[in-house]
Amino acid sequence: MEAEGLPLVESLGLRRDEPSRIAPPAPCVTFSGSRHGIDIHLVCNGKCAVHGVDNVGTVPAALTTYLALQALRPDLVVSVGTAGGFAARGAKIGDVFVATGFANHDRRIPLPGFDKYGVWACGAHPVPNLQKALKLKEGVVSSGNSLDYCQQDWDQMVASSAAIKEMEAAGIAWAAALHGTPLLALKAVTDIVDGDRPAQDEFLENLAAAARALQETVPPALEFVAGKTLAEL
Amino acid sequence: MEAEGLPLVESLGLRRDEPSRIAPPAPCVTFSGSRHGIDIHLVCNGKCAVHGVDNVGTVPAALTTYLALQALRPDLVVSVGTAGGFAARGAKIGDVFVATGFANHDRRIPLPGFDKYGVWACGAHPVPNLQKALKLKEGVVSSGNSLDYCQQDWDQMVASSAAIKEMEAAGIAWAAALHGTPLLALKAVTDIVDGDRPAQDEFLENLAAAARALQETVPPALEFVAGKTLAEL
Repeated sequence: MEAEGLPLVESLGLRRDEPSRIAPPAPCVTFSGSRHGIDIHLVCNGKCAVHGVDNVGTVPAALTTYLALQALRPDLVVSVGTAGGFAARGAKIGDVFVATGFANHDRRIPLPGFDKYGVWACGAHPVPNLQKALKLKEGVVSSGNSLDYCQQDWDQMVASSAAIKEMEAAGIAWAAALHGTPLLALKAVTDIVDGDRPAQDEFLENLAAAARALQETVPPALEFVAGKTLAEL
Repeated sequence: MEAEGLPLVESLGLRRDEPSRIAPPAPCVTFSGSRHGIDIHLVCNGKCAVHGVDNVGTVPAALTTYLALQALRPDLVVSVGTAGGFAARGAKIGDVFVATGFANHDRRIPLPGFDKYGVWACGAHPVPNLQKALKLKEGVVSSGNSLDYCQQDWDQMVASSAAIKEMEAAGIAWAAALHGTPLLALKAVTDIVDGDRPAQDEFLENLAAAARALQETVPPALEFVAGKTLAEL
């Protein structure tokens, strides 16, 4: 969402690309710049032409990632955004988690082979040094296309040992895997999944605070990444 | 799925494109040929490199559609596949339905504007003459990423007046709308959503019969479409 991305555009000193680095008709909006000797492209899904809101969920996330990788050929993808966090896994509002892995929690296909395809669990590239340097919490990021969850979503999140629940990372992971590009994910907690308040209330209340947490975390994370090999992260 | 597509490849006399008309790394498989004076491209999502099964669900469907529209610039997209049907809306095993509209049933986002974006309900281009000529049943096609459904999925399908439940069309509709390309959907019923048997049992039992129903319907549908304007369909 732009509410998550725009504070980063400012703090990273990026400029909006006109035209977008991703050709239409995909409505992706791109911002580019350089910092610490690396080229940075911040890519948003853009807005829905019909409903006027930001395109969210795994479908636009996967399409945007695929097209961005095609157009920009980056060495590393970083999925940055806000998310729900599990108190049972240590999450508090405003925490930033780094992903140890990705999974889907709303793709139930009880047929041989398709069951595992549906969850599409995969590990994230390990970044122990980055995690220590930035004092980040860590855990599995589970994605689904709803802001809330049904019982079956919950059961799958528990089965995946999810610490973070959001709506895009698993789609991004799938598209990044097609291109063979490593993926890092940084997710700031806006709401407590296993708490007692509706996600949408906490989300709106804490979106600005979580966006600030990302603004404080992402620039130093990129500075840490700059000039290092994957194995050094 | 290839099980749905390959019988059509044969009955339409198509040939597998080597290389695929859609460049890697997307694993899309394409088949091409001409019939009744029109160029036909049959495009499958291809297989998951990790789990070895066909890529199903809205994410690969949207990506494949977007890339196919970019590569092939067709006048019309036809989403062809098997689906669950609602007995309450007249569906029987082996029926082929033509879509009157599309919606998602597993994207619940209870925030202003995002609620409607989540469902992303849209009408299909009306095809009354095609429907009469081929004696097709008609109704709204609702998509989700699970073969089964949870209570919330059910509630949304009822709210959308869904006659057909499947796993791709809404993603295809979104990608086709980005390109401004009209979409027609033909869905053969493998299982009864509001029946008493698990979808996966009926699906496997009736997949071959439904694929045959598509094989009997799609070639005459394309023959009907050939040489007509959209308004004549």
